Amino acid sequence: MIIVMKPEATTAELEAVKNKITDAGLNFHLSQGSSRTIVGVIGDKKKIATLQMNSFGGVEKTVSITEKYKLVSRDFKKEDSIIDVNGVKIGGGHLAIMSGPCAVESKEQLLEAAKAVKACGAQFLRGGAFKPRTSPYDFQGLAEEGLKMLREVADEVGLNVVTEIVNINDLDMICKYADMLQIGARNMQNFQLLKEVGHTNKPVLLKRGLSATISEWLNAAEYIASGGNYNIVLCERGIRTYETFTRNTLDLSAVAAVKELSHLPIIVDPSHGTGRWQMVRPMARAAIAAGADGLMIEVHPHPEVALSDGDQSLKPDNFAVVMQEVRQIAQMMGKTL
Amino acid sequence: MIIVMKPEATTAELEAVKNKITDAGLNFHLSQGSSRTIVGVIGDKKKIATLQMNSFGGVEKTVSITEKYKLVSRDFKKEDSIIDVNGVKIGGGHLAIMSGPCAVESKEQLLEAAKAVKACGAQFLRGGAFKPRTSPYDFQGLAEEGLKMLREVADEVGLNVVTEIVNINDLDMICKYADMLQIGARNMQNFQLLKEVGHTNKPVLLKRGLSATISEWLNAAEYIASGGNYNIVLCERGIRTYETFTRNTLDLSAVAAVKELSHLPIIVDPSHGTGRWQMVRPMARAAIAAGADGLMIEVHPHPEVALSDGDQSLKPDNFAVVMQEVRQIAQMMGKTL
Amino acid sequence: MIIVMKPEATTAELEAVKNKITDAGLNFHLSQGSSRTIVGVIGDKKKIATLQMNSFGGVEKTVSITEKYKLVSRDFKKEDSIIDVNGVKIGGGHLAIMSGPCAVESKEQLLEAAKAVKACGAQFLRGGAFKPRTSPYDFQGLAEEGLKMLREVADEVGLNVVTEIVNINDLDMICKYADMLQIGARNMQNFQLLKEVGHTNKPVLLKRGLSATISEWLNAAEYIASGGNYNIVLCERGIRTYETFTRNTLDLSAVAAVKELSHLPIIVDPSHGTGRWQMVRPMARAAIAAGADGLMIEVHPHPEVALSDGDQSLKPDNFAVVMQEVRQIAQMMGKTL
Amino acid sequence: MIIVMKPEATTAELEAVKNKITDAGLNFHLSQGSSRTIVGVIGDKKKIATLQMNSFGGVEKTVSITEKYKLVSRDFKKEDSIIDVNGVKIGGGHLAIMSGPCAVESKEQLLEAAKAVKACGAQFLRGGAFKPRTSPYDFQGLAEEGLKMLREVADEVGLNVVTEIVNINDLDMICKYADMLQIGARNMQNFQLLKEVGHTNKPVLLKRGLSATISEWLNAAEYIASGGNYNIVLCERGIRTYETFTRNTLDLSAVAAVKELSHLPIIVDPSHGTGRWQMVRPMARAAIAAGADGLMIEVHPHPEVALSDGDQSLKPDNFAVVMQEVRQIAQMMGKTL
Repeated sequence: MIIVMKPEATTAELEAVKNKITDAGLNFHLSQGSSRTIVGVIGDKKKIATLQMNSFGGVEKTVSITEKYKLVSRDFKKEDSIIDVNGVKIGGGHLAIMSGPCAVESKEQLLEAAKAVKACGAQFLRGGAFKPRTSPYDFQGLAEEGLKMLREVADEVGLNVVTEIVNINDLDMICKYADMLQIGARNMQNFQLLKEVGHTNKPVLLKRGLSATISEWLNAAEYIASGGNYNIVLCERGIRTYETFTRNTLDLSAVAAVKELSHLPIIVDPSHGTGRWQMVRPMARAAIAAGADGLMIEVHPHPEVALSDGDQSLKPDNFAVVMQEVRQIAQMMGKTL
Repeated sequence: MIIVMKPEATTAELEAVKNKITDAGLNFHLSQGSSRTIVGVIGDKKKIATLQMNSFGGVEKTVSITEKYKLVSRDFKKEDSIIDVNGVKIGGGHLAIMSGPCAVESKEQLLEAAKAVKACGAQFLRGGAFKPRTSPYDFQGLAEEGLKMLREVADEVGLNVVTEIVNINDLDMICKYADMLQIGARNMQNFQLLKEVGHTNKPVLLKRGLSATISEWLNAAEYIASGGNYNIVLCERGIRTYETFTRNTLDLSAVAAVKELSHLPIIVDPSHGTGRWQMVRPMARAAIAAGADGLMIEVHPHPEVALSDGDQSLKPDNFAVVMQEVRQIAQMMGKTL
Repeated sequence: MIIVMKPEATTAELEAVKNKITDAGLNFHLSQGSSRTIVGVIGDKKKIATLQMNSFGGVEKTVSITEKYKLVSRDFKKEDSIIDVNGVKIGGGHLAIMSGPCAVESKEQLLEAAKAVKACGAQFLRGGAFKPRTSPYDFQGLAEEGLKMLREVADEVGLNVVTEIVNINDLDMICKYADMLQIGARNMQNFQLLKEVGHTNKPVLLKRGLSATISEWLNAAEYIASGGNYNIVLCERGIRTYETFTRNTLDLSAVAAVKELSHLPIIVDPSHGTGRWQMVRPMARAAIAAGADGLMIEVHPHPEVALSDGDQSLKPDNFAVVMQEVRQIAQMMGKTL
Repeated sequence: MIIVMKPEATTAELEAVKNKITDAGLNFHLSQGSSRTIVGVIGDKKKIATLQMNSFGGVEKTVSITEKYKLVSRDFKKEDSIIDVNGVKIGGGHLAIMSGPCAVESKEQLLEAAKAVKACGAQFLRGGAFKPRTSPYDFQGLAEEGLKMLREVADEVGLNVVTEIVNINDLDMICKYADMLQIGARNMQNFQLLKEVGHTNKPVLLKRGLSATISEWLNAAEYIASGGNYNIVLCERGIRTYETFTRNTLDLSAVAAVKELSHLPIIVDPSHGTGRWQMVRPMARAAIAAGADGLMIEVHPHPEVALSDGDQSLKPDNFAVVMQEVRQIAQMMGKTL
């Protein structure tokens, strides 16, 4: 941490700052600039994190130098992590495709979707049994009944199940049916949920929060990793900006950022990321070209009767076109699908 | 809902749209503009909410006309709601002041803070026993031990306790110690938590999510109200924007917006809203002048040794100055404190 | 500037960084942390501004410590600046009220508005003769004809004229008619215009850009000041955020921020800041309570026939109510109006 | 336009709204919903644009149905526009690559950069002679001297010149040297400049404003087109969001949006869009995969001594790698480069 003193800071104020640092078991370096004195704090990250220097007299501002997350950082592990879900690899050159309806609605719907996405090469069936919805009057999901359908259909067709958990009390139940746990954007900083999931060894798909910085997202992943569960895949799904044409603004530069800062795989969800089915195809191509390790795409056999998010769901034939183009770019990128 | 057809939409496409609407038990009005046909959907809000019209051929876009929330809306109840917490009224001309440290750290710290804020006229002691922190390595709170301290100190000094709940499994325990439950910004869309809290009759302080729209916030309140608990106070605490000088951008226009759209009381938290203790004083004045029903302000006897958010905590003497000014504006606004 | 080296930076890379700094005529301090070396650059701000250190091998990131603006900073001048416009003082305890229609439409409209705002205590008549409009098909203003009306009406009623300049070639013409030049949000970084205006001694009202940081705004003011014109008043008018209920998000914390960082006066425009006339009253009160040195408020005698921004214009009787309340808060704040 | 009446609107208020519409020479359709009456306004777009209905009693809100821009819309012209700059085609399957240093610094620097980018297949030499800089103390460009260098070097190497115009008074001079005029992000709503440029027939590269919506951007293009100049290429260069890891957030979904709404070509600038040279390569690939018609990439032979934006400039050898990958994706997309 860097502490910038005000130009008018007194010697006594500077002394108080120095004492606070050494009292905390830390060291410092002084740097006397042309108008300001700058104090560099040196020592253990966790101790530095507890300093509250802005409340000291004479302090203009403080600047953090290093990130708090460690286990998920590229500094900690240089090579790409590869997450294995029942033999399907994600990361390190292996692309994962997770597809299916937004919400599980019926076994017929799910089976039709599952067969379609399997035929196109998807390895994961997605579908929500517990839906976090803005309004209490919107469809909330089929709960355990939906989980059962997911498992049965996935087994029948030969896919892995990835599904969202929204309540820590559902953890055991969902683990019984799912191969991978999804933590949605709204729960990215539900720290209780992150901690609980960190104590399992289930693979986790951690979506980026609606307005989470890259740093907050990696710190959320650190909550899971620090519990002992390293099987984490990140998922960019659009951030909130002032633009209203799209539901969210898909931030593909987050793919490059995560690759630089962390060893974890990252996939992209262009369906939620744009909220418009017409945009899924170009954004899916762009995501893979940006270096993403996979895609999560909503596919619904009949989006016009979907109970949630039909506006952003692809029909199976459109999905087939997307997958064909994605394959070509994957090949160019030297990745397997 | 308004459905805007594309200029090139065919008659068959329009027919399909009309059929979907009537099949859903709804009615429509057609409006033939100079370049586009517009279809107005009429009928029950909840049925309209289930339509997925953007996936229909020929549809350019859809526009929502009404909000989904009902119980918390001004349409539903014209007069201001007044929430009563053990005889302390919030709303309808009654201001509430909630103060204390960000986190409960020790009984000494809490008692010193409580006496100071009580002396200045606060009616609520705030303090976190469970802290949602960005990093797993930050101080996470004293848990039940902290709740006990809150209760003891509040009883000793004569204050109500408002404290944050972050885990649905802690509900019974927290209800034992607290007079009012706080749902923090990160949990504003933790719908499981909202539902559970909606089944109690404890007063709830619902903070606005970091990047929640006014509409999403009122829908979150609707989750609580639809469970039967109408004792809801909203709290504006700053939203995320591009500006970095402040920790968040305090949106005081949200006070006026909520007053227009809802009958619920709304208070303002200038401490989190700015992240800088120097700004708490002017923003506290401005909040009351904007029409807020109260304030939540962090006060710490020794912010330079605080375990969290010392940067935004006032010292007791500064708080006294803030309260004096707030009282003057309250008087001008015809409100009691 | 602080340069943070990567953990794996080599000695040669560090040497290259050090050489670059000394070659630029600057000095440095090294600070060896637990995992990273940090290089503090010391010397002339302008020289530091020219360093391009992120492109050096081994550099992780750079952090700016000081702002580039100087003349407008509080460091440079401790006491509040007071801007004098024909005897009307702005800042340092003197409030200025600037009111009138969004656009000048006719002499009748303007005269009716001017009489109304004068009667309520406004000292400035505002009104656009050149309107920057999103669409080329929107009303663009009456140009010089509008300026003449402004001057005649202001002289008749006894007000100062503040009006927007959008084209550097209009400078001489506008200076002939106006007492104060307004630079609008869209032109806050029209640096040519800032430079030209900086070479006059006309008072300038510099609105904050739609998504300008406080720092960029003060740097824009520095463009004017560095040309020799110190007669600058800042105007907060709302920033762009994700919220759609209001046209912009009025950032009243910017008032407190500017008071901390600069000696320049700052006023607030709640009309553009919210885009809703219903919100002007509470936000005007809040602005003065936050410490603003004045207000810019749109008043139109007949907003329902306005050629621009009628949605956010007050009728004269509403304006009278606003002014009455503002006066009370001004008194409480110890300010004159 | 749709006008939504309040539930409590009176018959007289509705009559006043209807009269206003018919008085403006427009028609309307009434739609009586379950709780609200909705008025659809029908007729000429420009007349509708002048209505100020929110200031009418009983009006809850208004909703725009159609965009104001026309000439640049896909409705107006179905097929992709192809812009021809001295025989180099942009759009409709033809990719354009514009490269060179951020600012023109010296003839040696420019020539070295120009040869490198030409060798890799770029058709345009970019370089600023007039630099819009946040601080007045930053390097402002070499002005006409820089333009001469651009022309000489481009002629020597065989490239077209694209360079930024920041002042309408420089138009004739810049047209003498440049093949394409760039309007930068800060000037996207400098409507005087747009109008002037619209009266020439020079090809224009119109960058998206820092926080411009797609709609505002296309309206800015409409300013140019409505002056008679249809030779417009759009350029996405990142928008301002809360994320601080990148300088801006590159919005690649804007490429898909523009393709849907307009017939104009669109290119992408990953250098400004990210502000980090490490991200240019993945984002350049992603842009082409998203459907962009070209790229603008900063290349500097020695970024560590650049006078501006060296942090985001590629060295020639990195640029060569980018171009190789871009070519592969272009081929897959069926585009020529």
